[in-house]
Amino acid sequence: MTAPNLTAAAGPDYGSTVFGGWRRAAAADWQAYTRHEFVRRLGDGSLPRAAFLHYLVQDYVFLANFARAWALGVVKAGDLEELRAAAATVDALVNQEMRLHVTACAAAGIAEKTLLAAEEEIENLAYTRFVIDAGLSGDFLDLLAALAPCVLGYGEIGAWLGDAADDKTYADWIDSYAASDYQALCRSVGRLIDRAAAARLGAAPEASPRWADLCRTFRTATRLEVAFWDMGLRGGR
Amino acid sequence: MTAPNLTAAAGPDYGSTVFGGWRRAAAADWQAYTRHEFVRRLGDGSLPRAAFLHYLVQDYVFLANFARAWALGVVKAGDLEELRAAAATVDALVNQEMRLHVTACAAAGIAEKTLLAAEEEIENLAYTRFVIDAGLSGDFLDLLAALAPCVLGYGEIGAWLGDAADDKTYADWIDSYAASDYQALCRSVGRLIDRAAAARLGAAPEASPRWADLCRTFRTATRLEVAFWDMGLRGGR
Amino acid sequence: MTAPNLTAAAGPDYGSTVFGGWRRAAAADWQAYTRHEFVRRLGDGSLPRAAFLHYLVQDYVFLANFARAWALGVVKAGDLEELRAAAATVDALVNQEMRLHVTACAAAGIAEKTLLAAEEEIENLAYTRFVIDAGLSGDFLDLLAALAPCVLGYGEIGAWLGDAADDKTYADWIDSYAASDYQALCRSVGRLIDRAAAARLGAAPEASPRWADLCRTFRTATRLEVAFWDMGLRGGR
Amino acid sequence: MTAPNLTAAAGPDYGSTVFGGWRRAAAADWQAYTRHEFVRRLGDGSLPRAAFLHYLVQDYVFLANFARAWALGVVKAGDLEELRAAAATVDALVNQEMRLHVTACAAAGIAEKTLLAAEEEIENLAYTRFVIDAGLSGDFLDLLAALAPCVLGYGEIGAWLGDAADDKTYADWIDSYAASDYQALCRSVGRLIDRAAAARLGAAPEASPRWADLCRTFRTATRLEVAFWDMGLRGGR
Repeated sequence: MTAPNLTAAAGPDYGSTVFGGWRRAAAADWQAYTRHEFVRRLGDGSLPRAAFLHYLVQDYVFLANFARAWALGVVKAGDLEELRAAAATVDALVNQEMRLHVTACAAAGIAEKTLLAAEEEIENLAYTRFVIDAGLSGDFLDLLAALAPCVLGYGEIGAWLGDAADDKTYADWIDSYAASDYQALCRSVGRLIDRAAAARLGAAPEASPRWADLCRTFRTATRLEVAFWDMGLRGGR
Repeated sequence: MTAPNLTAAAGPDYGSTVFGGWRRAAAADWQAYTRHEFVRRLGDGSLPRAAFLHYLVQDYVFLANFARAWALGVVKAGDLEELRAAAATVDALVNQEMRLHVTACAAAGIAEKTLLAAEEEIENLAYTRFVIDAGLSGDFLDLLAALAPCVLGYGEIGAWLGDAADDKTYADWIDSYAASDYQALCRSVGRLIDRAAAARLGAAPEASPRWADLCRTFRTATRLEVAFWDMGLRGGR
Repeated sequence: MTAPNLTAAAGPDYGSTVFGGWRRAAAADWQAYTRHEFVRRLGDGSLPRAAFLHYLVQDYVFLANFARAWALGVVKAGDLEELRAAAATVDALVNQEMRLHVTACAAAGIAEKTLLAAEEEIENLAYTRFVIDAGLSGDFLDLLAALAPCVLGYGEIGAWLGDAADDKTYADWIDSYAASDYQALCRSVGRLIDRAAAARLGAAPEASPRWADLCRTFRTATRLEVAFWDMGLRGGR
Repeated sequence: MTAPNLTAAAGPDYGSTVFGGWRRAAAADWQAYTRHEFVRRLGDGSLPRAAFLHYLVQDYVFLANFARAWALGVVKAGDLEELRAAAATVDALVNQEMRLHVTACAAAGIAEKTLLAAEEEIENLAYTRFVIDAGLSGDFLDLLAALAPCVLGYGEIGAWLGDAADDKTYADWIDSYAASDYQALCRSVGRLIDRAAAARLGAAPEASPRWADLCRTFRTATRLEVAFWDMGLRGGR
């Protein structure tokens, strides 16, 4: 087993110059998130099983609320393409990804009723409610800036670990985000972001007076991802 | 061609005693909606083509906003089953029913871009925005009371015309709502309503202090369906 | 009694170039709204009393929902000044203007419980729910584009009739909108609009890709004002 | 200086049996919140100045978002009295309490621009966004269950310290919550809660199927108050 390559270049931008810009503006937090100790230890297999299981349970609760945030995207969609993308994502999260999670947890000995009875950790709660409020208070693009770190960050982590990790302990988890269909989803969300930004900010998004706010939203969501990994590492205490 | 049987008994309650109660409390408006002249003339084929096409175009805009209202149901879901039902409905509306509508309109000579450029009639706008606000201001059950007249009323109309109408002019439209899969959808929404009511109002929903408000929401939505048919009959002017 | 001067130049822009632009883009509808027969007959005193009272009752219900829309402005405020302006407006509408309405209605022989029991007309419902949904689906500026026609249009109507009308039948109503404090409120909302636009669209709002959408929102709200006057004229039937 | 009496009986229920019930169901967390070390040290004057100032700055950001949550109460109000109470509270928070905070902070040497530039701590963010989402996903009563721990808990803390503390270091802070007008506000919110519960749950709220959920919301908000004090004690690090 070798440690994942820590000096990896910046991850893929999934075809989105806007995401690229947001990530640059949050570079230190993005690094703390995507190269977090929890992530590295998923990669080298040293993450305690209990921490992983605690994370899995919290992530199930996270998914339900993350789907609610994407549903707000349906409410706020500005045109048909945004409507379709958000609707498909909600359904995929609720009726596919959450079910896969139930299966994965069952394989790990966690019953579905344990998932449902789990007390939501404060870091978990903070993250999803922040995303929902970013959507409620802003427009579709503000919502995307809050959703992006999770969707695309997991893509980057999956791609990195899929490449760099050779330990097999958490290979199932890694494979699900390194997989070509997840990477394709990231590219389609990347396109959605650039398209939504062009429709609202024009051809030079970084010159918009909203740019600083969008960067702040993205960065706060990234900080909350870091806190989520911290919570995972703390592992149910 | 014979006129549809006007003395038809009350329609199916789709297994929902709550829906049955709401419908009884709005009996006159419900009758005006489900036995509207627009509906009868769909049944006997006397509805002018222009009125039907005008309705189809407006209904496309309606569907987009109705999907947004169901998405608010995802945001407001109280448990997994509510979350799954709402998410599946959003996706079905946006990624199936709206596409079928595009096909049906194309068959009638209406290009998709005509659909998208259509100016929304005030009756159309009034209805969907009322439903969305009922959801925003209330809880999941308040939202269902506003959604129910459309979903279940079209079921009742489809079942009635499918049975009573023998004119073929609008058979495609009638068949889509008389069809067993649409009728099954109605039964599943009926179950969702009773389940949501039980979880919030208890075993005797009609005894709840919220009952009168829920009935009012249902009745207002029903009145807005009547106005929608009026608008359809007016036929693009 | 003389008829108000119908060839009045365009009303004041309340110091807002953005409002001026929105109004130009909706010129025909704006004219139909601010020079509506209902308005003219308020001015020359020929409006039937029953129509006025019907309007007053509906306007009370309108105010409650309009206050809810401004409350969404508090939820969506982007900075302290937007927060303060929206909060002060909500309180003024609910705890001052609605109370004045109760007094005015009482003077006209309409009891408060009649106000509360009034069935909301569809044109009334359409308007406020559209504004609320514009706020829910968009950002603070989208909400302002939907709120502006009511606030500033009543200012323009008040200023025009205050100037041109010499009949005294509806002088109380006219005076309340011609009054310097209402005109000052209009200027402060004008400033709020330009400030909110600058913060989101930059120095050339009309060049923003959002401009067409904002104009459409403003125009739809203006059309709904026209429908509201139509409803008033219909006068309770 | 003496330590505040730690064995104080349960605080006032502000005339609200519903609040009393919620508090009982969250007894351990309520105790952890209202008798938190941060609170005790406010009382005996041992709280480090830096911790207090850090708390003040975070509390300013908190107030802005808490006002947004109350504004959601205006959006969700079920009748005139709920509308008026929520509107008055929003205005009081934004246009009075936040201004007092600016004054208090200035007296402590913290400029208003420092307040506005403060980075929101995760515990702060978690709390207000949870409250906003409780309102968005539920009805007016769900929102009140999330708002109550802050409003009424500060009342209880103020009353307790006002009574038990004789150190003067933080007397200004203590006095503002021990003051008769704040205590009166608590009683009026207590009435609002019982009234809102009666209108939605009937005469026996604890027998409602919603009771467990409301208790959970109240308890989560209480846990988030504990985390807020923890953050305050950590004091800006």
